[in-house]
Amino acid sequence: MTSKHIVRAYDEELASLGNRIASMGGHAERMVEQSVAALINADAALARKVIADDAILDEGQRWIDDRAILLIARRQPMADDLREIIGTIRIAADLERVGDLGKSIAKRVVAVSDARQPIQLFRGLEALATLALTQLKQVLDVYASRSVEAISFMRDRDEEIDAMYTSLFRELLTYMMEDPRNISPCTHLLFCAKNIERIGDHATNIAETVYYVVTGEQLPPERPKEDKSHRVVLSADGDKA
Amino acid sequence: MTSKHIVRAYDEELASLGNRIASMGGHAERMVEQSVAALINADAALARKVIADDAILDEGQRWIDDRAILLIARRQPMADDLREIIGTIRIAADLERVGDLGKSIAKRVVAVSDARQPIQLFRGLEALATLALTQLKQVLDVYASRSVEAISFMRDRDEEIDAMYTSLFRELLTYMMEDPRNISPCTHLLFCAKNIERIGDHATNIAETVYYVVTGEQLPPERPKEDKSHRVVLSADGDKA
Repeated sequence: MTSKHIVRAYDEELASLGNRIASMGGHAERMVEQSVAALINADAALARKVIADDAILDEGQRWIDDRAILLIARRQPMADDLREIIGTIRIAADLERVGDLGKSIAKRVVAVSDARQPIQLFRGLEALATLALTQLKQVLDVYASRSVEAISFMRDRDEEIDAMYTSLFRELLTYMMEDPRNISPCTHLLFCAKNIERIGDHATNIAETVYYVVTGEQLPPERPKEDKSHRVVLSADGDKA
Repeated sequence: MTSKHIVRAYDEELASLGNRIASMGGHAERMVEQSVAALINADAALARKVIADDAILDEGQRWIDDRAILLIARRQPMADDLREIIGTIRIAADLERVGDLGKSIAKRVVAVSDARQPIQLFRGLEALATLALTQLKQVLDVYASRSVEAISFMRDRDEEIDAMYTSLFRELLTYMMEDPRNISPCTHLLFCAKNIERIGDHATNIAETVYYVVTGEQLPPERPKEDKSHRVVLSADGDKA
């Protein structure tokens, strides 16, 4: 009876880590959605809400770190459960960074709304955010369902995000060259786009962690392709390199 | 005799994790130094070396993750040692990211050298990199010496890096407005500056981990100040907001 109780308490502690990851994941998604909405609608109040909400993810990460380490110290789990617990520490760190990236987008809302931007720039950013958020939602589903076969599909999606980011990078540079008044706001939009691209990377990190938790193996380190924006050079007369 | 042997083997395994962190730290510092040197000297060969060297940090992080988890599973360490081991997992993740940031700077060398930039722009970037590298070296010293009292000093340094980054951000925007030919290379330099600023953040993360490893307590979550570049708006006629 007592040993059953101990096992049950242990399972509950493990489950509570997983539940907290799920709630952190939902919160991170919302922060990113709202930060992009704030940017598009020049909504400073929503931006402030996103900035304030970041504390919830910081607190979530600390809570998971503390609980996970206590759980390892007290229960001395064997390999499978240990991977599970270490996995929650890693995923919490990625979700906390996703929140930071959302907050960083929200902080640029005021600087960007200073000058109204062409609507198609926001469309590009919105499409990029939709892809990154789909990626994040899917990986959180994979974490919940343990169906790691979806992971190779996710890596393809990551390439799609990188390609879209590179094309948006090019487009933003073109706007900056067309009119110097675009330089300041478009620079902030460039950083927002980079932040969204990074959110896709964190979704991929989480996918790799989930794969490791479920299989005990690490995915091969090198991702096949990546963001090519570092090569983009536009000449001042508008020709594309 | 046997139990002494086991204890000694355990200590050696712990020490080997610490040694690997030290060697990853030295490697990360070199990558950042060389990436900035490649940028300033338009040295494409050095840039290629930095990009290739990144694999060493990826491999280091995988090695530490695997060993750390094996060590926990086999030895079931108590609180202090457990913090030590979890600490190496976290620090390895930060150092791996520092390497990624150095690689990301190296990848921009070709795009930036396409047009020669005013030398003072590189000076600003070099000064920023010197500050960030000092920060990284100091935190690796703190990790080796366990003298956590140096950590509050490091947080002040982080503010200095953020302030210098914000001023460089403003300066780069000014160059972009002065001449549209500067837009493309200066955008890449903006991302390089942001990468260096992020290296300072990772040094701060490592400081927080070391504090946690040594004291068992977490530093308060909010850092007092931060990068203010998100507020920078320059109007097209060169007035500074």
